[in-house]
Amino acid sequence: MPNQFDPPSGTRDFLAAEVTKRERAFNVLRSVFASYGFEPLQTPAFERVDVLLGKYGDEADKLVFKILRRGEHEASGEADLALRYDMTVPLARVVAAHGSQLPTPYKRYAIGSVWRADRPGRGRFREFTQCDIDTLGSTSPLADAEVLCAHHDAVAALGLADFRILINSRQVLSGLLEVFAVPPELGPGVLTALDKLDKISPDGVISELTGRGLDEHAATELVATMTAHDATERIRTALKPSESGMAGLDELDRLLALVAAQIPSERIGFTPQMVRGLSYYTGPIWEFVAVGVPGSIGGGGRYDHLIEQLGGPDVPATGSSLGIERLLTLLPDEAGGRPGTLDVVVTVLSDDLAAPSFAFAAEARAAGLSASVYLGSSGKLSRQLRWAADQGARWCLIYGNAEREAGIVTVRDLASAEQEPVLAAEVTSYLASRAADARG
Amino acid sequence: MPNQFDPPSGTRDFLAAEVTKRERAFNVLRSVFASYGFEPLQTPAFERVDVLLGKYGDEADKLVFKILRRGEHEASGEADLALRYDMTVPLARVVAAHGSQLPTPYKRYAIGSVWRADRPGRGRFREFTQCDIDTLGSTSPLADAEVLCAHHDAVAALGLADFRILINSRQVLSGLLEVFAVPPELGPGVLTALDKLDKISPDGVISELTGRGLDEHAATELVATMTAHDATERIRTALKPSESGMAGLDELDRLLALVAAQIPSERIGFTPQMVRGLSYYTGPIWEFVAVGVPGSIGGGGRYDHLIEQLGGPDVPATGSSLGIERLLTLLPDEAGGRPGTLDVVVTVLSDDLAAPSFAFAAEARAAGLSASVYLGSSGKLSRQLRWAADQGARWCLIYGNAEREAGIVTVRDLASAEQEPVLAAEVTSYLASRAADARG
Repeated sequence: MPNQFDPPSGTRDFLAAEVTKRERAFNVLRSVFASYGFEPLQTPAFERVDVLLGKYGDEADKLVFKILRRGEHEASGEADLALRYDMTVPLARVVAAHGSQLPTPYKRYAIGSVWRADRPGRGRFREFTQCDIDTLGSTSPLADAEVLCAHHDAVAALGLADFRILINSRQVLSGLLEVFAVPPELGPGVLTALDKLDKISPDGVISELTGRGLDEHAATELVATMTAHDATERIRTALKPSESGMAGLDELDRLLALVAAQIPSERIGFTPQMVRGLSYYTGPIWEFVAVGVPGSIGGGGRYDHLIEQLGGPDVPATGSSLGIERLLTLLPDEAGGRPGTLDVVVTVLSDDLAAPSFAFAAEARAAGLSASVYLGSSGKLSRQLRWAADQGARWCLIYGNAEREAGIVTVRDLASAEQEPVLAAEVTSYLASRAADARG
Repeated sequence: MPNQFDPPSGTRDFLAAEVTKRERAFNVLRSVFASYGFEPLQTPAFERVDVLLGKYGDEADKLVFKILRRGEHEASGEADLALRYDMTVPLARVVAAHGSQLPTPYKRYAIGSVWRADRPGRGRFREFTQCDIDTLGSTSPLADAEVLCAHHDAVAALGLADFRILINSRQVLSGLLEVFAVPPELGPGVLTALDKLDKISPDGVISELTGRGLDEHAATELVATMTAHDATERIRTALKPSESGMAGLDELDRLLALVAAQIPSERIGFTPQMVRGLSYYTGPIWEFVAVGVPGSIGGGGRYDHLIEQLGGPDVPATGSSLGIERLLTLLPDEAGGRPGTLDVVVTVLSDDLAAPSFAFAAEARAAGLSASVYLGSSGKLSRQLRWAADQGARWCLIYGNAEREAGIVTVRDLASAEQEPVLAAEVTSYLASRAADARG
């Protein structure tokens, strides 16, 4: 039940365990992308409304969070800024603004929040992280192969083993429409209907196709071909009369040959039924699916004219977007304990022992350990030991009057409850060697 | 001159070099904070307006970016959400929402963007990163000492050597007002005027004090005491009749004794002239200054009632905020080359050599190097070598027809222009050992 202290609808507070899991995943992604020579880009959270609106149609515009003008203009009720909806519109603006400073081709990755005023639901958020890799300025199929392999390596490096890549081509789809004599004006609608073959029955798709104006014979044939057990072979044969279709197949086969060096062949396959809803793709397209999980965990393709349509220069482009929020839910939680837990807790058994206790914590940090003194108000050792255990600490350094008189610190192993006296002057080296033992 | 492709006023695009420098700094901070047992917290970019507004007064409210309601409510011109203005209001909300899940005390750090509709200017941005560490739920002076030391260690770990910490206490300031018989209603104004002693002349401050209603004798005496060469000693003496003043001095001396284990004594000193503008502090306060640089590079103190005033539970608190944007400008730029540069570039000298070239890049990555094939359209070796050099690559793997026939790859060291033939099957191990040589 929501209450007044919950974060706004569709957003989340990330406490330590979640931040740690997310940051670890993002670091894995950064490192994979860097190994391919993709470089990071960060743009502001908001853009001017004229940059952002009108780029993906009215439905998308409705999902944009707009920012009220300020000061005397606030009363106008008008917006001059808006939170970014994706990473591609800012990319187009950056290339237009900073083109001369950027390498050619420009291979960049972006990991950051985007905001969409969608109805929040299971796994659908209004603030979520998007993770994109794109190469601008190259028409080479090698650029597609690099983006696809980098995406593959990133998913694999995150620890997801059971995933597959569906691959297709806009040109193959155009060829299909051509050989099944689909009138050009029906093309987009037919593709949208075919995209549902993994969700609704073939008959359902046929009736959607005829509802969209396709004649029944063509609709039945098309669906029969697409759903046949040997669909890919049938489609390869059916495409022979189509120049665009054959070019698309060539393009796909070349891409599959290139990525064979990096992607196991059982993980990737030509999937003519996979359409990807977005009409801006111009070449190969791909989608990542996790076995047994509905929906996609990312995808992309070549989109040679989009950057210009979004207000940037006319540059060829290819890119992939990782469904990182989805991926994060599929990854195992961190094993054991609270993250950010302490290695060492130091007791504070009286006010006049506070300074030396604080200094022992500093020594533990100097030994490469995380350490904190007890910050509560109890002077009781038992209470302080319990707090240390609650923090998941490995050691508690006990420093009372007896220790002070003897010039020692009592080092307690909180798991075994074994205690050992250590000369005060040797605490740093003792802890450093214990920590090395524990690691090694 | 701004143009249509610039980011919105007061915001910045961070290209690769800047992202790398910033992320490196943030990682240093995370690691220092974790070593003290501070844990990360991330909250949404926006909060409900009722959570955000009315917390720091009208002037602050004017700086808040408000988000228009959506759908049918957009026409109302009303805002229901607003971008966060700082990290403390969200912290208060999180503690109210998730209190039972949080450790006691709750030691958290937050590094993230905040947004303020300030007039943009030299070094003043509308979107900037804030970096806060806070401990909630402890009244112990050790909590103040920890926050202060963690802030100190973070600044030192960033590589800034020449900085100082000015330290004072709200109770010392109250005691000063008391012994100089400043009427209580003039207290805040007098402190605001005294805070300017580092910017304007003593006479200027005296006339501001009298302008605010303080009698001339008191004003002159107060300023004379504060600006004397032995000001701290004079103030220690002057405070003797004030209980609050003496308690403040005790508090400060205890804090200085605690942090002595971690902070070199020449870096920190009692500075009675340092007031910190914000009225919510209740105990010790501190400010970090970089030697020779005007203004502060961060600061903090104890603020025992603020969390409750901001809508959270009534918990004692102490914290520090690093002026990270300021600090970043003081750090040296990364040495040498573009960041994200490649270790290895592989030529693509013809279409039918693309697949093996792509596979060599994959092998270089398997050897732990960053690698990319040439993605341009030129088939000329000289052009591809120049591109590799422009990327700052260390090696170019040349793979032409001659190499294919001989079963080798020509490895060119781009700095020395030396070339060496390597058996194609041994490229990975060859590169791995060269990389190890270069590192070691």
